Amino acid sequence: MLRKTRLFTPGPTPLLPAAQLALASANLHHRTADFRALYTRTLADLKEFVGTQNDVLVLTSSGTGAMEASISNLTSLGDKVLVLSAGKFGERWRDLAKAYGCSVDVLSAPYGETFSEGVLRARLGPELRALYVQATESSTGARHDVEAIARTVHKSAPDARLDVDAWGIDILIGGSQKALMIPPGLAYCSVSDRAWRRMEDAGSPRYYFDLRKERKAAAKGESAFTPATSLIAALAAALDYVRQLGEGQIAVGREALIEGAELCAQMTRAAAQSLNLKLFAPSCPAVALTALVPPSGIDSGKIVTAFRENFGAMVANGQGEMKGKIFRIAHLGYYDYLDTIGIIAALEHVLAAAGISVDFGAGLRAAQKVYAEHSAARQPAYAQR
Amino acid sequence: MLRKTRLFTPGPTPLLPAAQLALASANLHHRTADFRALYTRTLADLKEFVGTQNDVLVLTSSGTGAMEASISNLTSLGDKVLVLSAGKFGERWRDLAKAYGCSVDVLSAPYGETFSEGVLRARLGPELRALYVQATESSTGARHDVEAIARTVHKSAPDARLDVDAWGIDILIGGSQKALMIPPGLAYCSVSDRAWRRMEDAGSPRYYFDLRKERKAAAKGESAFTPATSLIAALAAALDYVRQLGEGQIAVGREALIEGAELCAQMTRAAAQSLNLKLFAPSCPAVALTALVPPSGIDSGKIVTAFRENFGAMVANGQGEMKGKIFRIAHLGYYDYLDTIGIIAALEHVLAAAGISVDFGAGLRAAQKVYAEHSAARQPAYAQR
Repeated sequence: MLRKTRLFTPGPTPLLPAAQLALASANLHHRTADFRALYTRTLADLKEFVGTQNDVLVLTSSGTGAMEASISNLTSLGDKVLVLSAGKFGERWRDLAKAYGCSVDVLSAPYGETFSEGVLRARLGPELRALYVQATESSTGARHDVEAIARTVHKSAPDARLDVDAWGIDILIGGSQKALMIPPGLAYCSVSDRAWRRMEDAGSPRYYFDLRKERKAAAKGESAFTPATSLIAALAAALDYVRQLGEGQIAVGREALIEGAELCAQMTRAAAQSLNLKLFAPSCPAVALTALVPPSGIDSGKIVTAFRENFGAMVANGQGEMKGKIFRIAHLGYYDYLDTIGIIAALEHVLAAAGISVDFGAGLRAAQKVYAEHSAARQPAYAQR
Repeated sequence: MLRKTRLFTPGPTPLLPAAQLALASANLHHRTADFRALYTRTLADLKEFVGTQNDVLVLTSSGTGAMEASISNLTSLGDKVLVLSAGKFGERWRDLAKAYGCSVDVLSAPYGETFSEGVLRARLGPELRALYVQATESSTGARHDVEAIARTVHKSAPDARLDVDAWGIDILIGGSQKALMIPPGLAYCSVSDRAWRRMEDAGSPRYYFDLRKERKAAAKGESAFTPATSLIAALAAALDYVRQLGEGQIAVGREALIEGAELCAQMTRAAAQSLNLKLFAPSCPAVALTALVPPSGIDSGKIVTAFRENFGAMVANGQGEMKGKIFRIAHLGYYDYLDTIGIIAALEHVLAAAGISVDFGAGLRAAQKVYAEHSAARQPAYAQR
């Protein structure tokens, strides 16, 4: 039987076909009126996607580049910063801040867990220059509650899925290869007025990631340095798709995208429970992905290999010290029902091949029930139309 | 949740990504050395795909164009021809032969059934100029046993999946949009020495579909008329993929493609049985597709609509008088395990939404068991490697 290569990794995620077409057909020079029009429109669309009145800038780099920008543009040598860390990306924040000579205070939680409000409150103080946290710790499948963190820091944060402005998020960072359904190579960040003011006296060295240069260029419809033009064209196409999904409104499309991911996540977790697989981060599970613990004695690398070799499906192993201990399946991105039910079916075979007793269809049925209940709640049976 | 558009129709089938790239990047002039090299190589590869020593030609037309060519190039006004017909494509053979003024003898079987050897034998005779039959009657999901027909006509036909030369098939016809995994727009046909000889005194008018013109042009690496160049590039890419699948041998890759389709078909039929759905052509089921009868009282058009609206999956309604009575799911083409399990899962929801009592997961489990038995027979459990 054929085996199609399919990405179920939490980034890169599968490419949106319209974005692939845009990638393949983009033949742009970046210092032209055409490109300036495209770039200006894309930055405006991205701003609607992020849902902010702040400036939104694009960098030609991985997400780590924008992480670095948010350190180098806001800190000076010796500044005290607080990093919340409970996984590989929290540790990256720590390492970045250290690389710029910050005095780093790390509030740690065990992998797969998150931070209590009380402990966080005790670590805050006027001497802190900045606080850095990964919203979704994709290395462990945990989601840190940025809303609660914002409430602790700022004393208020309205209940919402993500409200950059009302929560007082000074810099929000994303990469192109996850929810945006395009390849890696672009990062984006929103920058608040407070962050722009703080940049004035930030003394850390920066050049390529100097956000003030990017803001100045963006005002003219340009990027400070040569941008990845084909990825900008793909980003424009992806944001058009999100707008279409929202029937004309990118913000509505973004919510639909996240709600779809939540349903994929619920299906996957119901299946995992039926198959006696444990969630790695049960107390604070992410929407974007599910991290599962293989049955005892089985290396998750073997699970990952079996998915790939038998089904062409790429799921992610754990990273660093989690390697061999968990495997991760993505939900946020260009995924639908057939993808999600397919990876669950494959999971049943992979477990059976590993010698686990599997009641074929048990996980699938649990996932179907989640889907059926959800769709029954949202739409009438077609026989009644 | 997102709904990806997916073709489960028995043509067009999903596009091979490598062929899509070739389509998008082809920027060819057809009267150049580059194109002649591509065309010559593609015809040779296609010959290996068909598995024949006969000439293989490509026409820029749908499959019906090649059907017409096999009538107009071999018959004269008033010639007696026998058409085996048990569905829409059998009827197209009849209509084509009539359009060219042939005296058409039709051996019919009910839709979903096939022809008995005894009855066929009684209809043969030296006065027949030609016999036409559709191998897979995709309108009903039936496969006519070309091997048995060849044995009846020629007294011998070695046991094989398809052996154009040994079975004495004078013209074998295919379209680009099924097993070849590229869009519609190209047809191909193999032409035997006997067929070339018969063409000498065939008096029917033909111009665009004159196979002698095509043979002459093909010898120079060209087509007689302007070809669909981008589809030729896509065909070349698809045949490269089939070769890769066969580890260097197109013939081996073709078998793998068909074996994969057989497994998809078996999974789908096991699921249908568990869900109490009847096959439409149980006595002679096709490999390329499965035609299913909806539960009594339900119009298959509603099933087709529910698949599309709820899951983005395009399955086919019946054609002509079968409209509303059956629905059809394809297996031959760019399909794998995840596709097949996904369409079965969707089928369970579609039936449930139509008011049928469905034991969620029952069809899926049946399909998984078919797959597990098959893969257990072919490969060791990965834990043992």
